[in-house]
Amino acid sequence: MTRFDDATASEPEGEGRWRAEIREGWDIGGVPNGGYVLALATRALLGTAGKPDPVSVTAHYLRPTRPGPATVEATLLKPGRTVETVYGTLVQDGEPRLAVLASLADLGAAEHLPVLHDRTRPPDLPPPERCPRVVHDPGTGFPPPFVDRIEVRTDPALAAFTRGEVLDRAEIAGWLRHGDGAGPDPLSLLMFADAMAPPIFNVGIGPAWVPTLELTVHVRRRPRPGWLRARFTTRLVAGGFLEEDGEIWDSGDRLVAQSRQLALAPRQDSSATGNRSV
Amino acid sequence: MTRFDDATASEPEGEGRWRAEIREGWDIGGVPNGGYVLALATRALLGTAGKPDPVSVTAHYLRPTRPGPATVEATLLKPGRTVETVYGTLVQDGEPRLAVLASLADLGAAEHLPVLHDRTRPPDLPPPERCPRVVHDPGTGFPPPFVDRIEVRTDPALAAFTRGEVLDRAEIAGWLRHGDGAGPDPLSLLMFADAMAPPIFNVGIGPAWVPTLELTVHVRRRPRPGWLRARFTTRLVAGGFLEEDGEIWDSGDRLVAQSRQLALAPRQDSSATGNRSV
Repeated sequence: MTRFDDATASEPEGEGRWRAEIREGWDIGGVPNGGYVLALATRALLGTAGKPDPVSVTAHYLRPTRPGPATVEATLLKPGRTVETVYGTLVQDGEPRLAVLASLADLGAAEHLPVLHDRTRPPDLPPPERCPRVVHDPGTGFPPPFVDRIEVRTDPALAAFTRGEVLDRAEIAGWLRHGDGAGPDPLSLLMFADAMAPPIFNVGIGPAWVPTLELTVHVRRRPRPGWLRARFTTRLVAGGFLEEDGEIWDSGDRLVAQSRQLALAPRQDSSATGNRSV
Repeated sequence: MTRFDDATASEPEGEGRWRAEIREGWDIGGVPNGGYVLALATRALLGTAGKPDPVSVTAHYLRPTRPGPATVEATLLKPGRTVETVYGTLVQDGEPRLAVLASLADLGAAEHLPVLHDRTRPPDLPPPERCPRVVHDPGTGFPPPFVDRIEVRTDPALAAFTRGEVLDRAEIAGWLRHGDGAGPDPLSLLMFADAMAPPIFNVGIGPAWVPTLELTVHVRRRPRPGWLRARFTTRLVAGGFLEEDGEIWDSGDRLVAQSRQLALAPRQDSSATGNRSV
């Protein structure tokens, strides 16, 4: 059992109820990573249905979670031969913290189906050893231990914000893998989809807290062992909201996940940026 | 009250229950349009909460709906000052047909917030009168009356499939408005996000039935009166699934909605197409 498997495990506790533990060390400033808690909740939903893989998962983040005991309450909405759909909430202290709708299938059985169309292209990155990694400092506590749970190696050209520079587009890309060297599985893609810094940092918005309101991940294939590559972009920050689109590729150059989230934009003066192309 | 308002209305029927009627004429081959039933369900969810606009709405399509009576069962998951989240199911014949998670807000109050970043660009289309419209034929019944509910005018350059031609990319774009001339509102964008022909038709896949498994729409702004422009693209058709990304702009050249759906791909021989760039 890998560290990720262990940290997302839950035990059945009666009809449609799962007892879980949100672990220490998967948080940033005390708030567990949104992709991590989504993976934890979705593992319980997989246990509720009869399919091995998430294919489309949406979470709405209602209230922050915290490390500690949690319950997942799950309802199988539709059993099925190809796709099953489950609804669930992750509850702490009697209150739902996130609500999840997930459609599940067997991506292994789908592998033999032909690729009918593919216009995707992985990001062109320097090799991982030339992409800097941020490592946890146990002395100051910053960056937090989460950066050791997932090894993120950001393309230096798209790590402008770490040098106080500003780009003309909100984009970030890099290499991703579990910090303990475990290979990626479909469930972990839900976490990797929320693991990099917000791309808006590269256009001079923030660094600041960017709370996710909703995150949807489509898992398109079971990833092959090895490094993942990911790219995240934001095209519109307006009206207090922003979207963040993500794509994740496996070591076989195959797109394995697409993600999109809607987040609350940091409030700041528009004069700081303003890459308005229309 | 517009025809769309009327066709998506529902009446309260006790705590968290709404009685609705899926109308005739909003279907294609007897199956009501997925965006239409999503708008109908979401109107009931708006009635359950205290916010006027949908901002992030996800539906999982469990079973086909049909014209006739329906019930929406809604639960307010989180009241809030800025955002409220509601879960609901649309039920017919005692079975949930679609499950919806929706976060709601007041997009009018957000209009004054600055545009901090904008890299969106509306499609460059010929004027509406030079984009052909498909009109319902009451004699043969095909195309179905739905094409009169929404006026879709497709860019001739991206209507290749209607002429038996094949493009190198799965893209479609055009003008959209209500068939009765009513202006667009935020709720109607949920329907418009599912109103055009699947872009894969333009790369030689289909025409065939492309059942939506899951549809997420982010409404970014209240649309201004007048025509909408929309563009839909698909980049990967593999493993029996495809994604479809949509963007909708208003008459003020503002992006008003982003959508993504995961759908079941038609099964066919890969030799027919195969625009594989990786």
